[in-house]
Amino acid sequence: MPTLEKIKDASKVLSEIIRPTSLIYSPKIAPDCHLYLKPENLQVTGSFKVRGAYYKISRLSEEEKAKGVIACSAGNHAQGVALAATKRGIKSLICLPDGAPISKVEATKGYGADICLVKGVYDNAYQKALELKMQHGYTFIHPFDDDDVIAGQGTIGLEILEELPDADAVIVPIGGGGLIAGVASAVKAINPKCKVYGVQAAGAPSMFNSIHSHAIETLPKVSTIADGIAVKTPGQHTFEICEECVDEIVTVTDDEISTAILALIEEQKLIAEGAGAVSVAAAMFGKVPVKGKKVVCVVSGGNIDVTILSRVINRGLLNTGRSADITIELTDKPGQLSEVSRIIAEKGGNVVSIYHDRGDLDVEITGCYLRIVLETKDFTHIREIKDALLMAGFKLV
Amino acid sequence: MPTLEKIKDASKVLSEIIRPTSLIYSPKIAPDCHLYLKPENLQVTGSFKVRGAYYKISRLSEEEKAKGVIACSAGNHAQGVALAATKRGIKSLICLPDGAPISKVEATKGYGADICLVKGVYDNAYQKALELKMQHGYTFIHPFDDDDVIAGQGTIGLEILEELPDADAVIVPIGGGGLIAGVASAVKAINPKCKVYGVQAAGAPSMFNSIHSHAIETLPKVSTIADGIAVKTPGQHTFEICEECVDEIVTVTDDEISTAILALIEEQKLIAEGAGAVSVAAAMFGKVPVKGKKVVCVVSGGNIDVTILSRVINRGLLNTGRSADITIELTDKPGQLSEVSRIIAEKGGNVVSIYHDRGDLDVEITGCYLRIVLETKDFTHIREIKDALLMAGFKLV
Repeated sequence: MPTLEKIKDASKVLSEIIRPTSLIYSPKIAPDCHLYLKPENLQVTGSFKVRGAYYKISRLSEEEKAKGVIACSAGNHAQGVALAATKRGIKSLICLPDGAPISKVEATKGYGADICLVKGVYDNAYQKALELKMQHGYTFIHPFDDDDVIAGQGTIGLEILEELPDADAVIVPIGGGGLIAGVASAVKAINPKCKVYGVQAAGAPSMFNSIHSHAIETLPKVSTIADGIAVKTPGQHTFEICEECVDEIVTVTDDEISTAILALIEEQKLIAEGAGAVSVAAAMFGKVPVKGKKVVCVVSGGNIDVTILSRVINRGLLNTGRSADITIELTDKPGQLSEVSRIIAEKGGNVVSIYHDRGDLDVEITGCYLRIVLETKDFTHIREIKDALLMAGFKLV
Repeated sequence: MPTLEKIKDASKVLSEIIRPTSLIYSPKIAPDCHLYLKPENLQVTGSFKVRGAYYKISRLSEEEKAKGVIACSAGNHAQGVALAATKRGIKSLICLPDGAPISKVEATKGYGADICLVKGVYDNAYQKALELKMQHGYTFIHPFDDDDVIAGQGTIGLEILEELPDADAVIVPIGGGGLIAGVASAVKAINPKCKVYGVQAAGAPSMFNSIHSHAIETLPKVSTIADGIAVKTPGQHTFEICEECVDEIVTVTDDEISTAILALIEEQKLIAEGAGAVSVAAAMFGKVPVKGKKVVCVVSGGNIDVTILSRVINRGLLNTGRSADITIELTDKPGQLSEVSRIIAEKGGNVVSIYHDRGDLDVEITGCYLRIVLETKDFTHIREIKDALLMAGFKLV
């Protein structure tokens, strides 16, 4: 567990490279508490990971620096290590599984790393990285289970309490546990009364399970839109620090995460990735006891694939009544589509797409299904449109 | 034209209410210049409008304050006036057309304004506001053509040159012209060598046209996704300041604006509305001569409707090869769909939707169309998938 002195040292070193990410007061997202965001999505590389990587690299010996560093990641850690190494003038090699999104590969290259694409999944890339490390004497930069890396991430805790000394609680995402281990080390050293809550995705609760059984557990599989915290096994150091310093760990579902991403877009004009939004989801959905308290949610990163973002938004629109998917059973006679369209237009619905199918076995031979996707104002508006269709004699499925 | 002293006074007054919006260095968005963003999308109410409104309101007489203020807007100005009035403890009444998005009506109410929904469009709401002003003696807060409002917006120019004294150019969105009139007044007073460029949407070039013909012109209609700057007639004061202080005005298309919105999301994790992104679009698409220069783009607001955002993203995905829409003409025999699916899967394409139509008159009676929407990596990837389908004998439409 890093000492407060070490975290303060990391803070000094990091001032060379990181962007200030001042807290953003965010009164509308969870109105029953006083919510602040620590927007590490606005950090260079789009996530907090550069902090731990840069501090770790700054502490290597000259000999180690000369040989260069290696890491394995398809995500934020890759970009953090690449930028940190380049800024320190040393070589970096990043192993990625060959299925990694092209945008992340390009971003990592763009920060100056050499790339080794490994056939297979993360585990194959990890094995390859260990091999290359042995062969060439590179220093392996662990994504979370390393005291220097943890101290680097801990600077976030320091900054939070410098800016808001009377914070009652800090809510932190957990994947491998590096971020929360650092933040908890700093926060508890400065103000032991400030609570530290951890949040995992319900589809990847490795630290949650491990803490509950008081032993490190490995998940057989992980499944969540929060890919940045989809970690099967927590770290040894990070597990121990969580046992000692973290007040409670909770989980949030993918639907809760999607709603939090949408709220950050609408209320704060900020893009968070799934992993970055779990802290906000925990506050919004009352997973942690923060009513009336001054709370800081660490938004750890913003590197979300836009195709995923588009799906999250569409889902969020359905979840909040701004979009509706209505299926109508029609008798197959002229004028029906025109009548349906008229009713919808009259009620202010905006048709996005229509699918008209005559071939379904479930309907009578003279009938058909009409499926309509609409832009709507809210659930009341959807109800009004549906009621108007029912009043006109249409059968909704 | 407000003096620098007045703008500095506005800056002092505004310190009570506005959030600091430090410049964000943004090296990847337009790599041939040194680009900084002034993120007023992160401002309270999600746009810069609160600056002008608050300064204007702060200068009212006690008698005027006692009677309250009125404004007409379906957008950012409404929220700015509402918050500014509430913070100063005075009443505000906002007239909106009854078709205004429910989210904006709710947000304006949320900032403490009374709402008057007027049947019709903006012009009807404006007439109603003038009527009410006459009847009750409210002070009308103009959205742009007012020296106090312009001075309030000018604080943005002040802040930019305080933070980056050697900026070569500032790029500013133009609707009615209040923002650029303020920014140009400040910038030219401090450093006349710093260029000030204005940007309008190609579908609403009212100031652009007026400046070119040296007389205020009114557009018959406006059409753009940048609804915040879709203004038919520039202001008198703002037009005069633009004539005197603005170096050049350019226009950008809706497709360029969409690409800029997507770039801000991907590179900076920021949500901009269309009006807010036109400055960035101008820099990205080389509309202004800023190669090698230190440039600040004012991102004026982030209040974009999420349904629009979803469309912009989908369009951006198509524009950048991350999504593809392929139509295949099939002969209507078993196994064809299975074969197409196999080829796409093998090439790593991810099917989003399939539409299969037998009824089209353009195809032979034994044929049909298969329309597939795919998630892809880039244009090369789309080409690979199409080539593989062609190689297998399929006919692409």
